Amino acid sequence: MSHDLTRLALPHIQRLHAYTPGLQPNEPGWIKLNTNESPYGPTPRVTEALRREIGSDGDALRLYPNPRSTPLRQKVAQVHGLTEDHVLIGNGSDDVLNLLVRSFCGPEAAAGLTFPSYSLYPVLVAIEHGAVRTIEFNRQMTLPVDAIVTSGAKVFFLTSPNAPTGVAFGNQQLAEILERFPGVLVVDEAYAPFAQEHAVPLLARYPRLVITRTLSKAHALAGIRVGYALAHPGIIDVLDRVRDSYNVNRLSQVAALAALSDPGYYDAIIGKIIRTRDYWLGEWSGRRGWFTYPSATNFIFTEPVDAAGRSGPDVAKSLYHHLLSRRILVRYFPSHALTASFLRISVGTDDDMLAVNEAFDAWPQSAK
Amino acid sequence: MSHDLTRLALPHIQRLHAYTPGLQPNEPGWIKLNTNESPYGPTPRVTEALRREIGSDGDALRLYPNPRSTPLRQKVAQVHGLTEDHVLIGNGSDDVLNLLVRSFCGPEAAAGLTFPSYSLYPVLVAIEHGAVRTIEFNRQMTLPVDAIVTSGAKVFFLTSPNAPTGVAFGNQQLAEILERFPGVLVVDEAYAPFAQEHAVPLLARYPRLVITRTLSKAHALAGIRVGYALAHPGIIDVLDRVRDSYNVNRLSQVAALAALSDPGYYDAIIGKIIRTRDYWLGEWSGRRGWFTYPSATNFIFTEPVDAAGRSGPDVAKSLYHHLLSRRILVRYFPSHALTASFLRISVGTDDDMLAVNEAFDAWPQSAK
Repeated sequence: MSHDLTRLALPHIQRLHAYTPGLQPNEPGWIKLNTNESPYGPTPRVTEALRREIGSDGDALRLYPNPRSTPLRQKVAQVHGLTEDHVLIGNGSDDVLNLLVRSFCGPEAAAGLTFPSYSLYPVLVAIEHGAVRTIEFNRQMTLPVDAIVTSGAKVFFLTSPNAPTGVAFGNQQLAEILERFPGVLVVDEAYAPFAQEHAVPLLARYPRLVITRTLSKAHALAGIRVGYALAHPGIIDVLDRVRDSYNVNRLSQVAALAALSDPGYYDAIIGKIIRTRDYWLGEWSGRRGWFTYPSATNFIFTEPVDAAGRSGPDVAKSLYHHLLSRRILVRYFPSHALTASFLRISVGTDDDMLAVNEAFDAWPQSAK
Repeated sequence: MSHDLTRLALPHIQRLHAYTPGLQPNEPGWIKLNTNESPYGPTPRVTEALRREIGSDGDALRLYPNPRSTPLRQKVAQVHGLTEDHVLIGNGSDDVLNLLVRSFCGPEAAAGLTFPSYSLYPVLVAIEHGAVRTIEFNRQMTLPVDAIVTSGAKVFFLTSPNAPTGVAFGNQQLAEILERFPGVLVVDEAYAPFAQEHAVPLLARYPRLVITRTLSKAHALAGIRVGYALAHPGIIDVLDRVRDSYNVNRLSQVAALAALSDPGYYDAIIGKIIRTRDYWLGEWSGRRGWFTYPSATNFIFTEPVDAAGRSGPDVAKSLYHHLLSRRILVRYFPSHALTASFLRISVGTDDDMLAVNEAFDAWPQSAK
């Protein structure tokens, strides 16, 4: 019966499998370093703003939210020195990415992406039965400018800084792509607050540039689902045609607005996360001698080496399971040679990172 | 430049215009009877549950929500006497409707709908460049069973009780469609809590039936954006492939769960809304002699008559603007002969409804 029902769906939907998000354990006691959440909570202004919106009786919740998230959009515009018609608010940046795929990509209009990058892009493209052009990075993670420019894609998704490697790309290289690539270039800046450079200054010169951001990582608000796009008003207008009118609920709108109103708080926790990242990145790549990409994000992508001096998929897998046995959750991407030898470890608190490092020390190194 | 940018979009997206939601005034002082929100607030349990989730410092908000809204899904299943694999939770029922269109409708797979019905359906279908079969009701709002059965649609959207007329359809007629219609029948029960019958009992017999529900109307939670689908697990599985993994944020999940845990509270406010509705429906159709459909919803669809005994689009428009001048917002659908002579008025508090009735009395009846 289920099989018969599936056959009622569109042919390309029949062939789909659901995207698998990172594990979200419900019980306490886990060190959760698998989905790049913030180890520190949001600014207290978020709590205050939520309490104010809820009020004594929650009466405001009976009314629909602002359909364009206007106060939040104005705040985002102000933060980035843009006007509000350059901003679209999404139910997480996943919502924004989805709108981009639905607006610009289809069976006759390919989406371009790199491997590795955020694994949601090909899922969103497949849902729209879209054509895909995938460009593989080399191990040095050199940005393949020419390949992107000549990809034939109508819309290209570039995670910058990259996930899961953590490697940043400079604005000079992005500008080189934008000068020559005739389609829409989406620069997914989920991790940009942890990097030294970001692409927002390029918006003034390149109307085909779309930047996506999220409050899930640096702003410690993965639980409220808010992200946004920054782009030329002509592109925002297109995305608004596809966007659900009430895509962002009332509480998420006020929480995000409160977070963006306290940059000092976030500068402090972002600075702390960067210091923790750089310390452990130095330890693992230096003292342990594990190949580790330079990270401009809140995670570390490292290639473990066992006692016999070997690295590779089996070694990474062994360490992944060892960490799991100690209730430490990290991310492991076994499906491709460029990622299968690595683990991606979100930067946690000092205690979290010490526990990870101790677990490395205690690793029985089963490859022995 | 904006024009050039629009031309980067898919051809059918270039031709789209954004859906226009009902006006959401920001300033106080309006009597807002235009989007069928509840005039009464949510159960106090919602406020308590939100406070608990936010805690003293909002720390839980740094973590992603449960990707399948599991506790809420279990609660919804329990409320309807189903198992949780029959339930999908959406970011409002608009999200669920969107998933249905994207899974079952495309250029070669038509969506069917009636006119009038919820005006979002054709917008969602147009975004997917889907084919449409529209079946018009007659003025008696008789359910066109044969026309639906033979429509050739792969998925048919039926608002029941209907919006904007408020007319309910019986399960016997729905069963007649389900016996003969070979596609997926979506019964959009946004207003079912105000009706005497609902289609949930039909799920056991008809695996191609999908019921959608929302917490925006009867549950007084339009601000949190939660809706759901009830269907055979084979259909839920299809929708889950298209659904965003984190479509419902943490706060909305706990608020909806709390609301569904207090049926006694909602029975009371729903009962009150029904009594208010039936009183004013009687007044306007009886005492004023305005043609008014019997309503199984939380709104009244009425055809105003002016002092000269005339009804029609100009009369409805005149009254709409008269109400607006008194800061009373209702909904007016001028684009079609079946709706243009009517106003749709959400059932408000007793004071709201008295104000509407007084405004009717004070109407200068410009058609004189």
